[in-house]
Amino acid sequence: MSPSRRGGAPRGGIDLGGTKIQAVIVDGDNEVLGEARHPTPTSGGPDGVCAELADTLADAAAAAGIHPAKLSGVGVGSPGAIDADAGTVAQARNLPDWIDPFPLADRLADAVGAPVRVDNDVSVATAAEFELGVGREYSSLLGVFWGTGVGGGIVLNDEPWVGRGAAGEIGHMVVKANGRRCPCGRRGCMEAYAGRGAMEARARKLHKNGKKTELFKIMKKRGRERLTSGVWARALDQGDDLAREIVAEAIEALGNGVASAVNLLDVEAVVIGGGLGIRLGEPYARKISNAMQPHLFVDDRPPAIEVAALGDLGGAIGAALLAR
Amino acid sequence: MSPSRRGGAPRGGIDLGGTKIQAVIVDGDNEVLGEARHPTPTSGGPDGVCAELADTLADAAAAAGIHPAKLSGVGVGSPGAIDADAGTVAQARNLPDWIDPFPLADRLADAVGAPVRVDNDVSVATAAEFELGVGREYSSLLGVFWGTGVGGGIVLNDEPWVGRGAAGEIGHMVVKANGRRCPCGRRGCMEAYAGRGAMEARARKLHKNGKKTELFKIMKKRGRERLTSGVWARALDQGDDLAREIVAEAIEALGNGVASAVNLLDVEAVVIGGGLGIRLGEPYARKISNAMQPHLFVDDRPPAIEVAALGDLGGAIGAALLAR
Repeated sequence: MSPSRRGGAPRGGIDLGGTKIQAVIVDGDNEVLGEARHPTPTSGGPDGVCAELADTLADAAAAAGIHPAKLSGVGVGSPGAIDADAGTVAQARNLPDWIDPFPLADRLADAVGAPVRVDNDVSVATAAEFELGVGREYSSLLGVFWGTGVGGGIVLNDEPWVGRGAAGEIGHMVVKANGRRCPCGRRGCMEAYAGRGAMEARARKLHKNGKKTELFKIMKKRGRERLTSGVWARALDQGDDLAREIVAEAIEALGNGVASAVNLLDVEAVVIGGGLGIRLGEPYARKISNAMQPHLFVDDRPPAIEVAALGDLGGAIGAALLAR
Repeated sequence: MSPSRRGGAPRGGIDLGGTKIQAVIVDGDNEVLGEARHPTPTSGGPDGVCAELADTLADAAAAAGIHPAKLSGVGVGSPGAIDADAGTVAQARNLPDWIDPFPLADRLADAVGAPVRVDNDVSVATAAEFELGVGREYSSLLGVFWGTGVGGGIVLNDEPWVGRGAAGEIGHMVVKANGRRCPCGRRGCMEAYAGRGAMEARARKLHKNGKKTELFKIMKKRGRERLTSGVWARALDQGDDLAREIVAEAIEALGNGVASAVNLLDVEAVVIGGGLGIRLGEPYARKISNAMQPHLFVDDRPPAIEVAALGDLGGAIGAALLAR
């Protein structure tokens, strides 16, 4: 019944996403002892989401054979505007009715019986890759999280760079003046071409206008309502023309935007993560690297381009780092 | 005859530009005791430029009533690829026949009789504004040097960020995918629209194609061979349509590119310097700020936008900081 394990007491980590909640239990060496995944509630507001976080964590703890109240701490990586010191989350637009600041750390701590820390989902995923994943050998890197949106995490001099709290919005770098409308409402952002949300909107529009595609058939066959990363990957494997065209546009936008960021920051490495980045993997990381090359100002020593090594669990493992 | 002055021994600073060499002598409080400006030689290679640097410094020292050999040190801000530790400069494409690494620090030290340090021209100008100019009240800033090209200098956590040595190439961030050809050879760079070199090429092309403009008349009247910042300013004052059109394109590109950099870095302030930036001043800094606004992801707290306070002498004063 001793709580001591290899390298220290177990901790919890939760990656709160717009579609799924991923929880892990790790030991003091950040080895995963148990994990669980639940769908993110689409109603019930912050209280409903908080209850589901506690349930997901309890399932992960059960898988690890640990009572949640025995955890030395729990970290949460969340979307939205985070006040890490206050433990609050606001304006999480992909979560149900979550606009005003909600005291997530305190409420979840009450539900779990262990202290909780909250931080930005992209920041914790970047920290995980920097400390435990492909970023270990670098002192500066840019994390590019290619999913529904395109998020960025920055590490410089072995420390995260967050600016005034909102650094890393690589998805909203302008890659095409007066270009396509972005889900954020602005024009020409990288995410307007490369975000999975924008890519799906583009596919629906072109399909409606008569373009043939297997994308929506694959989606229905899998019982999905959205073009998930797996749906895109399957369509690409089948040689679907529309999928290839839209992904090629995304790759070009990523090439422009990530090269611009590298020209500005001259980091040692770029880590490609996120749902699409991890699902499409090495071959598409190479395509992004090739698309960057013509735009790199110092083109004879490009940064290393690496796929996130921690995969789907990276966000949750990174969140657990908050609880040390 | 005592060399001691207010706050310490005098130092020299030289800003080596493609068209002019600006030298200053400063005291220990970085007050300018004397200054001189010479045209940059267009032939004679690195040795010829080095001799002209020594002459310009000697004139500045004479104006300050000091013998150059009495200086405690001299700093040089140079274009090209700098190895600050080795004191060498290579690939300075705006300088005559200067491709291979040239030991500028050692050669100039021999000529002057005082120790010399060399660093990147944009870095030293950014350091000057950060330490002595409008950047003093901020701990993070982006310097945007709007001149023949568009250079960027970055300060984060009160320290310069240089990456692997080449950070700050804000002029080569892509603002328009598949856009206009840049002097660097790439497509769609901010500098392709906003660099004074590219703006002049655009003006010459449109003028040749029949567009009316006063730009070249003003240039000739002033005995210039290039569209200097003063020529652009005069044409704008006169309401010249072509000048206004090209400057408006530059402002739009700067708005896109600088907003992208701010979305990535979330710095507290943007300092607008460089020949055009300083010559056009506050009204155009406001235009850049307005052009950035629609692209700022966090648009309710834009960074402060400030014109470089040290003006034309900023680069040389910043170079003198190297010699402390």
